[in-house]
Amino acid sequence: MSRTLYILNGPNLNLLGKRQPEIYGRETLADVEEACREEAGRHGFDIRFHQSNREYEIIEQIHEAREKAAGIVINPAAFTHTSVAILDALNTFEGPVIEVHISNVHKRESFRHHSYVSLRADGVIAGCGTQGYVLAIARLARLLG
Amino acid sequence: MSRTLYILNGPNLNLLGKRQPEIYGRETLADVEEACREEAGRHGFDIRFHQSNREYEIIEQIHEAREKAAGIVINPAAFTHTSVAILDALNTFEGPVIEVHISNVHKRESFRHHSYVSLRADGVIAGCGTQGYVLAIARLARLLG
Amino acid sequence: MSRTLYILNGPNLNLLGKRQPEIYGRETLADVEEACREEAGRHGFDIRFHQSNREYEIIEQIHEAREKAAGIVINPAAFTHTSVAILDALNTFEGPVIEVHISNVHKRESFRHHSYVSLRADGVIAGCGTQGYVLAIARLARLLG
Amino acid sequence: MSRTLYILNGPNLNLLGKRQPEIYGRETLADVEEACREEAGRHGFDIRFHQSNREYEIIEQIHEAREKAAGIVINPAAFTHTSVAILDALNTFEGPVIEVHISNVHKRESFRHHSYVSLRADGVIAGCGTQGYVLAIARLARLLG
Amino acid sequence: MSRTLYILNGPNLNLLGKRQPEIYGRETLADVEEACREEAGRHGFDIRFHQSNREYEIIEQIHEAREKAAGIVINPAAFTHTSVAILDALNTFEGPVIEVHISNVHKRESFRHHSYVSLRADGVIAGCGTQGYVLAIARLARLLG
Amino acid sequence: MSRTLYILNGPNLNLLGKRQPEIYGRETLADVEEACREEAGRHGFDIRFHQSNREYEIIEQIHEAREKAAGIVINPAAFTHTSVAILDALNTFEGPVIEVHISNVHKRESFRHHSYVSLRADGVIAGCGTQGYVLAIARLARLLG
Amino acid sequence: MSRTLYILNGPNLNLLGKRQPEIYGRETLADVEEACREEAGRHGFDIRFHQSNREYEIIEQIHEAREKAAGIVINPAAFTHTSVAILDALNTFEGPVIEVHISNVHKRESFRHHSYVSLRADGVIAGCGTQGYVLAIARLARLLG
Amino acid sequence: MSRTLYILNGPNLNLLGKRQPEIYGRETLADVEEACREEAGRHGFDIRFHQSNREYEIIEQIHEAREKAAGIVINPAAFTHTSVAILDALNTFEGPVIEVHISNVHKRESFRHHSYVSLRADGVIAGCGTQGYVLAIARLARLLG
Amino acid sequence: MSRTLYILNGPNLNLLGKRQPEIYGRETLADVEEACREEAGRHGFDIRFHQSNREYEIIEQIHEAREKAAGIVINPAAFTHTSVAILDALNTFEGPVIEVHISNVHKRESFRHHSYVSLRADGVIAGCGTQGYVLAIARLARLLG
Amino acid sequence: MSRTLYILNGPNLNLLGKRQPEIYGRETLADVEEACREEAGRHGFDIRFHQSNREYEIIEQIHEAREKAAGIVINPAAFTHTSVAILDALNTFEGPVIEVHISNVHKRESFRHHSYVSLRADGVIAGCGTQGYVLAIARLARLLG
Amino acid sequence: MSRTLYILNGPNLNLLGKRQPEIYGRETLADVEEACREEAGRHGFDIRFHQSNREYEIIEQIHEAREKAAGIVINPAAFTHTSVAILDALNTFEGPVIEVHISNVHKRESFRHHSYVSLRADGVIAGCGTQGYVLAIARLARLLG
Amino acid sequence: MSRTLYILNGPNLNLLGKRQPEIYGRETLADVEEACREEAGRHGFDIRFHQSNREYEIIEQIHEAREKAAGIVINPAAFTHTSVAILDALNTFEGPVIEVHISNVHKRESFRHHSYVSLRADGVIAGCGTQGYVLAIARLARLLG
Repeated sequence: MSRTLYILNGPNLNLLGKRQPEIYGRETLADVEEACREEAGRHGFDIRFHQSNREYEIIEQIHEAREKAAGIVINPAAFTHTSVAILDALNTFEGPVIEVHISNVHKRESFRHHSYVSLRADGVIAGCGTQGYVLAIARLARLLG
Repeated sequence: MSRTLYILNGPNLNLLGKRQPEIYGRETLADVEEACREEAGRHGFDIRFHQSNREYEIIEQIHEAREKAAGIVINPAAFTHTSVAILDALNTFEGPVIEVHISNVHKRESFRHHSYVSLRADGVIAGCGTQGYVLAIARLARLLG
Repeated sequence: MSRTLYILNGPNLNLLGKRQPEIYGRETLADVEEACREEAGRHGFDIRFHQSNREYEIIEQIHEAREKAAGIVINPAAFTHTSVAILDALNTFEGPVIEVHISNVHKRESFRHHSYVSLRADGVIAGCGTQGYVLAIARLARLLG
Repeated sequence: MSRTLYILNGPNLNLLGKRQPEIYGRETLADVEEACREEAGRHGFDIRFHQSNREYEIIEQIHEAREKAAGIVINPAAFTHTSVAILDALNTFEGPVIEVHISNVHKRESFRHHSYVSLRADGVIAGCGTQGYVLAIARLARLLG
Repeated sequence: MSRTLYILNGPNLNLLGKRQPEIYGRETLADVEEACREEAGRHGFDIRFHQSNREYEIIEQIHEAREKAAGIVINPAAFTHTSVAILDALNTFEGPVIEVHISNVHKRESFRHHSYVSLRADGVIAGCGTQGYVLAIARLARLLG
Repeated sequence: MSRTLYILNGPNLNLLGKRQPEIYGRETLADVEEACREEAGRHGFDIRFHQSNREYEIIEQIHEAREKAAGIVINPAAFTHTSVAILDALNTFEGPVIEVHISNVHKRESFRHHSYVSLRADGVIAGCGTQGYVLAIARLARLLG
Repeated sequence: MSRTLYILNGPNLNLLGKRQPEIYGRETLADVEEACREEAGRHGFDIRFHQSNREYEIIEQIHEAREKAAGIVINPAAFTHTSVAILDALNTFEGPVIEVHISNVHKRESFRHHSYVSLRADGVIAGCGTQGYVLAIARLARLLG
Repeated sequence: MSRTLYILNGPNLNLLGKRQPEIYGRETLADVEEACREEAGRHGFDIRFHQSNREYEIIEQIHEAREKAAGIVINPAAFTHTSVAILDALNTFEGPVIEVHISNVHKRESFRHHSYVSLRADGVIAGCGTQGYVLAIARLARLLG
Repeated sequence: MSRTLYILNGPNLNLLGKRQPEIYGRETLADVEEACREEAGRHGFDIRFHQSNREYEIIEQIHEAREKAAGIVINPAAFTHTSVAILDALNTFEGPVIEVHISNVHKRESFRHHSYVSLRADGVIAGCGTQGYVLAIARLARLLG
Repeated sequence: MSRTLYILNGPNLNLLGKRQPEIYGRETLADVEEACREEAGRHGFDIRFHQSNREYEIIEQIHEAREKAAGIVINPAAFTHTSVAILDALNTFEGPVIEVHISNVHKRESFRHHSYVSLRADGVIAGCGTQGYVLAIARLARLLG
Repeated sequence: MSRTLYILNGPNLNLLGKRQPEIYGRETLADVEEACREEAGRHGFDIRFHQSNREYEIIEQIHEAREKAAGIVINPAAFTHTSVAILDALNTFEGPVIEVHISNVHKRESFRHHSYVSLRADGVIAGCGTQGYVLAIARLARLLG
Repeated sequence: MSRTLYILNGPNLNLLGKRQPEIYGRETLADVEEACREEAGRHGFDIRFHQSNREYEIIEQIHEAREKAAGIVINPAAFTHTSVAILDALNTFEGPVIEVHISNVHKRESFRHHSYVSLRADGVIAGCGTQGYVLAIARLARLLG
């Protein structure tokens, strides 16, 4: 069985740490990737870390994960609220999925309160900053034994 | 500054591990308390662990926390969706608050999709089973330095 | 197997027969209890009859019923429309549950048209006055053989 | 004063006991009629038992009941949710009316949660299987002295 | 096993080809019946073709179909949007059901966008004109082997 | 061109003058028919006056009117709010249509505020008692020259 | 008792016959006034005919009508849908009120389907063109004996 | 007749003056009690002043008020928006009831705009700070003569 | 600083005491003005008391108040629910504003439950009869020191 | 053909530049008029510039414009969201209409997101400050050739 | 005129036959393409068969179809419910469009009940499995003569 | 500071002037680009003009604009109503943003009435045809001094 976790990031997250630090903090996505790799390593996993502003790349990463990943951590960013296609892709994946949001989306605009991805995700972690990724990996590690 | 975390649990959670294991798993609340104490200890915190079927006890625990707690982990259970009073109590607390749900509430009945507590919580962790409590403590530990 | 039926009554029902007789009639809760005991006896059951203005007491009576009751008749009164916690408690009970309302709630204010308890109850009897309790016991007796 | 009760049954109930037994049970409408006649007789009433897939027949039975019936038990089946005409007919009847549903409609599709007939019925009994008819007759007997 | 298909048509379809040709075209229902018989014959089926302005006749045709039909094609016309009774009748039928609408109902008034029948139908064909019936029969033929 | 007006009446109107006089007044449908015939005669029209509790009869009267009537007055009663089939039938009629309600439906239950028939009717007269029919005929007479 | 009828007309009706003839026809308000006076005279009434683009003038006309009018015909035009103040004024008037709309408002934009005035009016006549005023006067004449 | 006024306060009000002074001001509940006693005394009334975080205590205070109080001032705080049980209790009380909110709830979150208690209260005073209690007592004094 | 309070009254209030006394009581607006002047005098203020059926006059009184008034009491009557323009005018005023309703609007038709003015008012007093004005002045006096 | 543009301004705009500069800026309406006249002149048009707090004046200006104006620029201010009467008046005008809002109404309260005037306007310019008027005139000039 | 049909497939359909066979069956997209080519050939058409997880590719295929295709069959998959851009692209295409869904979307989650594409499509075929493509081609062949 | 304006265009706008001229006119996007360049030049700006059917390209153009653009004009076309990702990208841009729609979206289908982009845009110009771009540039020029 695969010991790889896919960590997928949605649109605009390439700017993490460079925009709106009052919402998203000051860590960059490279910092997040490093923290994820470290946490995954602690549990005997490696990671494939991906960010895309393209919905189709995220869909295709999920398709690839069907073959290659033991579990998925996904921060769908804006696609959370609009992408049935990502939901459908995740529905084809059989391993565990944890959804992460850096900010607490429930305190923001009402259109951010609904998540298509939550209809498939096993767990959802919101408002724990970039540490949310690390917590998500800890969860996957537990689920994957 | 206080090094105590309040871990508050809402109604019916005293039956944890004894009912509907397909939703809530097989660990009891005593197991959860032990895991929380261990995680908190790892970060130099102790905990006050409380479960109540009484909304007022949870309110009064939160009032007490204003004096005695550095942070709060709360699994409001059914009160999540109905208690403005708990929200108002949390609004009087100044430290960080993490909301935990054992199951992924977004996959259940629609009345479970709305949380009054999320309007105040800093972070929300759902669907990570009883491990959610441990992850919440890890988050508080990070926030509290 | 237990031959006890739990008859649980929600808030303000202690005033039954003393208030708004045009809605609730003139029988008191003691009259209801007596009628219930008689009907239950006719079918070889005894009853535990409880009224409370406290949501937690009703929750805890239901928890107790898990061990001690063959079936539950519940008139949740105002909690019908607001208590997810009672619904969750009933979801942990495995025997039959009959929900009773003295008045026909569907002819009253629109907020009385929705019942959380109906999502779990096996049967619902409304608008049959205090006789509704007796009919509910007759139903439980049939279900419990 | 009339000692006849009209027992009216809506569309598809002619198939009772022959379809979807997991929802409606295995008793046929003939069984129900017999049980109703027996219960009515116990209270000194006779019955007129009618089933129709035709809305107008039910309306006209209600019109006839204005002259000939002391009370009505009605299981409007699918017409529950769609027939203002039956509601209007019932509004012209002056005796007591009890509405019966074999299944607990509140646990089924949301369009089954609203009943036009409940706006007129004195009592509503749902989810008590075919015994609901017998309970309804007991209620009418009490109301009619 | 039966080799008969029931082709059921709802209210006002007797006027097909005689009214609103810009919506419904110029073919009459007799033309449709002929085309259906031909297509069914091609697949070794015969048909029973029925039109009614009476909801109860459609219900009773469906009841009859329980014994005599291998599959049903139904164009419920106006009853599509209002008849729970037809839905309930179809729910008692065990073979395949294809729903047909001559016009594309999704482009018309919003009350035509909801279909009770679609909650039961296996397939739905809308906006393919009277050819929709032929396509529906082709689908039934495939399903029935 | 035809000089006949069809006056169509929906369910329960056969009881007019015999039920709920506080809403519908004390005139019977026979009184209404006489008043209509008189008013129509004054303008050189005769009438075909019909009441039915059967939706299909109303539909078929409308179909017949396509050949035989210059205009239609319709009081659809309860079918006003529920019958798309009557709307569809009226859509096939090319002459003027006036919708009549004896009571002011806008002051009654909210489900009586919506009329499918109004989507087709040229004029709507509500709350003018049985005189509404006479006013409607006066309107048709004006439209038909 | 007064033998005067107040005929009140809302905003933009001063343009009647001069704008959008496909909706409102070609008669001017002066034509309407003349037809009203004639019809009222036929029944032994005189009229006070008023048009205003000013909500307050209509309110004050209604106040004046409390002293001087036997009944009111009102075409509130755009104020139909927006003026609680006119409704409140009409609520202080004790005689009969008939609401008139020249076009069938139910076939136009959805915001034209709701009328505050209908909550008070005894009768409502819509879509009968300017003849609606005459029909309304005939109705008032009947009500006022 | 009783000369006692019950002044009832809902959850979290024990913290008044100690939390969120920008919303609730700096006066404590003891200050409020003193101001109430003084105002009541000015009108010849004494008061029973009660605060509780427990819904049932408020219900039971209202029950007690049925015997002992001439009128009720209630600030239900968070229970305003969620407690049908308190509404039902107030419905059993026959004297005047004034509802008080310290802040203007209509300017806060939308779930604070609806009050179950307002369905029973004679008067509602919001956004007048703690002076609202004093105004409410002045109102009760006027009503009670 | 100005010692004048503006007391503004909306449409139909000129009829106060002359209409619907079961809702609005028997005091006239002149009585109200006198009571206001007395209460204001007690606190060292004089008043400008104004009633208008004209939205624009109320707007312009508010504009004038920007220069001349220390505070505003406003009973917008029907304009409460419909006038964004009055809200916008009040938004330009910098002193305190108290909104008064004589009846408890929350117990009346649902369209009376929403107030545009409450989005700006500091306090809202409803259902305290004409005494509400006096209470409002007492509140302004406190706020203005 | 007329070379005059009507520039119409709704309630409270007489305070422009004197209130809430963070929303509306510091230019006065006289500044706006001057800028409009200059821009219109550049394109060979003159203007009629009007502000009113009175809905009827705006309606009557629009009526006048039917004779005298080539096009209309309208900033309906608060009437945007509430005045069907202004919409109806604009519907009688045949030239081009541009709607202007100084602030971006879509970022403000939700009741400011709907505009009746937009249902008629050819163009809508919001959030461009007082320059919006100038842009609107440029648009009219283009449309009017 | 072109004799080519464009068959366009949305996201995740590349996995057809490889995922969730209980919903989508076991045929692959290659099987579908072959069946389409065969059916098209039978009617004298060839096909261009395209699948993409990229919304823009589908848009651009539709743009290309404007030049090269006689008709379009489109299974937009998840984009059905979310893509206004595809609707807008189809609105630029002048030939016939048939929308296909393999499953009966009306029986699935409520967000799958709305289709933007249906606002443009001539016909819609759902729940006929992969045979739906073949039926759609048969329909296009008929429309294209 | 940059003197470049980014002019971004969403899906299907490459067909501008080639499709639906009754909605979008006959100018091509090249015409628009030229007009923009001219207008920008008049104010001392140059432009980067971009059209894409790809949401991600628009996102990435906005990211690039963070470094290189003084302001943005965006016509998001269909993405207006569906793209939270573009909103989020714009939220990272610090300069002024003007949203342009060629047609008056408020007169079209209701799903076109909501714009995610308007939640960020400083100004919105709709229904001014392709001139809207030029007006938007004039606005940016003013804002950027």
